[in-house]
Amino acid sequence: MSENVKEIKADGSFNRQKNRFTTPFGHDEGELPIESGRYRLLWSAVCPWAHRSVIVRSLLGLEEVISLGTASPMRPKLPHVDWEFSLDKDGVDPVLGIRYMSEIYLNTDPDYEGRPTVPVIVDIKEKKVVNNDYFKLTNYLETAWAPFHRKNAPDLYPEHLREEIDRLNDVIFQEVNNGVYKCGFAQSQEAYEQAYDTLFARLDEIDERLSKQRFLFGDYITDADVRLYATLIRFDAAYYSAFKANRNRIVDFPNLWGYLRDLYQTPGFGDTTDFDAIKRHYHLSNHIASNDQKSYHILPKGPDLSGLNSPHNRQTLSNKPEKFLLKCEKEE
Amino acid sequence: MSENVKEIKADGSFNRQKNRFTTPFGHDEGELPIESGRYRLLWSAVCPWAHRSVIVRSLLGLEEVISLGTASPMRPKLPHVDWEFSLDKDGVDPVLGIRYMSEIYLNTDPDYEGRPTVPVIVDIKEKKVVNNDYFKLTNYLETAWAPFHRKNAPDLYPEHLREEIDRLNDVIFQEVNNGVYKCGFAQSQEAYEQAYDTLFARLDEIDERLSKQRFLFGDYITDADVRLYATLIRFDAAYYSAFKANRNRIVDFPNLWGYLRDLYQTPGFGDTTDFDAIKRHYHLSNHIASNDQKSYHILPKGPDLSGLNSPHNRQTLSNKPEKFLLKCEKEE
Repeated sequence: MSENVKEIKADGSFNRQKNRFTTPFGHDEGELPIESGRYRLLWSAVCPWAHRSVIVRSLLGLEEVISLGTASPMRPKLPHVDWEFSLDKDGVDPVLGIRYMSEIYLNTDPDYEGRPTVPVIVDIKEKKVVNNDYFKLTNYLETAWAPFHRKNAPDLYPEHLREEIDRLNDVIFQEVNNGVYKCGFAQSQEAYEQAYDTLFARLDEIDERLSKQRFLFGDYITDADVRLYATLIRFDAAYYSAFKANRNRIVDFPNLWGYLRDLYQTPGFGDTTDFDAIKRHYHLSNHIASNDQKSYHILPKGPDLSGLNSPHNRQTLSNKPEKFLLKCEKEE
Repeated sequence: MSENVKEIKADGSFNRQKNRFTTPFGHDEGELPIESGRYRLLWSAVCPWAHRSVIVRSLLGLEEVISLGTASPMRPKLPHVDWEFSLDKDGVDPVLGIRYMSEIYLNTDPDYEGRPTVPVIVDIKEKKVVNNDYFKLTNYLETAWAPFHRKNAPDLYPEHLREEIDRLNDVIFQEVNNGVYKCGFAQSQEAYEQAYDTLFARLDEIDERLSKQRFLFGDYITDADVRLYATLIRFDAAYYSAFKANRNRIVDFPNLWGYLRDLYQTPGFGDTTDFDAIKRHYHLSNHIASNDQKSYHILPKGPDLSGLNSPHNRQTLSNKPEKFLLKCEKEE
């Protein structure tokens, strides 16, 4: 994710670009076929939009079905902002042979002019982008990809809740997931303050909701929890300072803090969270305006995140905590 | 206070300039005479070094004895960094008639080449700097200026504790007061991390000390508490983010947080603390490197500081809490 002049409106507010490749996965004509080994998911550990797909891939046991390529948290600023595979040997993704994310976008559409974004699903043989629809990608993994789910995989998108989950996901997207970016990328004090007020009002409301139930929809983790987690886990380490989303931190919320620890300690969440990457990206990467023209770069040593491993006791809010364990935790 | 190329050492660490005008106040030959109405103290509400003098002036009831001029929190960057009297009518200090702090320094010494700093004591008639020794200024107010102290003024610098207070003040200066600047102005990762580790190790040590006693030297506020306060009160609103002093905030320390509230709620402390000025300065003022070349400036709306007014219950640590009230609080 990056700031882009084209994505700033006249009032100084941030307006994220639309996705370009949105063909759904499915079993019908014109949909992307479901096939093990055919696709590669490209992400960077910093990116909350990509992180949600990687968490769902892990929760559902799709690791052997869809492979994973990882771009560096430090974004180069070539002529255009990009993602780089500099973590890989020789700086090249070992499966696709690309150095920059833009290569795969331009190979798919030589006229592609947007930012090359993650997450993106690439057809390995064709070396072409088939889908970069971060908003719907987890839902495809949860539904169309069901034939490949591991045994006892959780149902992250239960049919009877889909409408409600979609509605909450929309709110979480507008006000929280993208809300922190609206704070950080605002170019007017008014646009910033409006995003800030909306963000914290929503976090207060969600905090209240989580006082009575373990997860957003009760006893079980759903797609909505994954989406909220991706922002909450970056909050204190990045958004609080780098994006001025600083009314308070997540550790200051009575319920969100326990909820965040609960998720962090669940396999698929904490083990896909890379704080070093997150901090480097938000505090050092040159594509973010506040870092753009600094003459020297210092990585903040804090905050102390050790509390994430402390007991949360949220299972007492569950009606059937043992069922959650059966459904959601990986077999050891 | 500002970053200055001359104040950065080869290893990237920050090395604060020495004071230039250090003649002591006193009653002996060659010392600055103690006289009501003769001097003006110039400060800016953002500056922790100046704030300590203003707190002591208030605690001792010297408001009518030494007048106060207030420079803006936003520092202009003329050819050299300066302080500006833009809060005053027509942008001019009403007593001294100056627009910029540098004027009074240059009127005193046309060859003055350092940064014009606050606090500074000016002889009103001569319009000349007589003392800018922020390190010793509070001690002069506490001792040489005793003839003008209000009735029942606290003894902030008791003779039998002076050696110990001086020793602690030195440590607090090196590792805390100036320690946060060493974090914020470091130009190498190593210098930053060293300052960070030293700062938080010392705060941990002081936090432990304050678990058993109400103030740094027991039941009564001393000069050392004033010095520590000036940094602690700026910590969560400024240093945590702007100077990357972010292992944790003061609210996270079990004893420092109550101690800070105790002082904040004592007349002379909270009522001389201007958070708006502090936030504007550290987050927006162009003389700070991280703000220097931003193309637009947004003032962080947080953090929520309302907790400073919550009960602290620290008086239970005092042996004679009523005596503290008599000695230190202003008569209503």
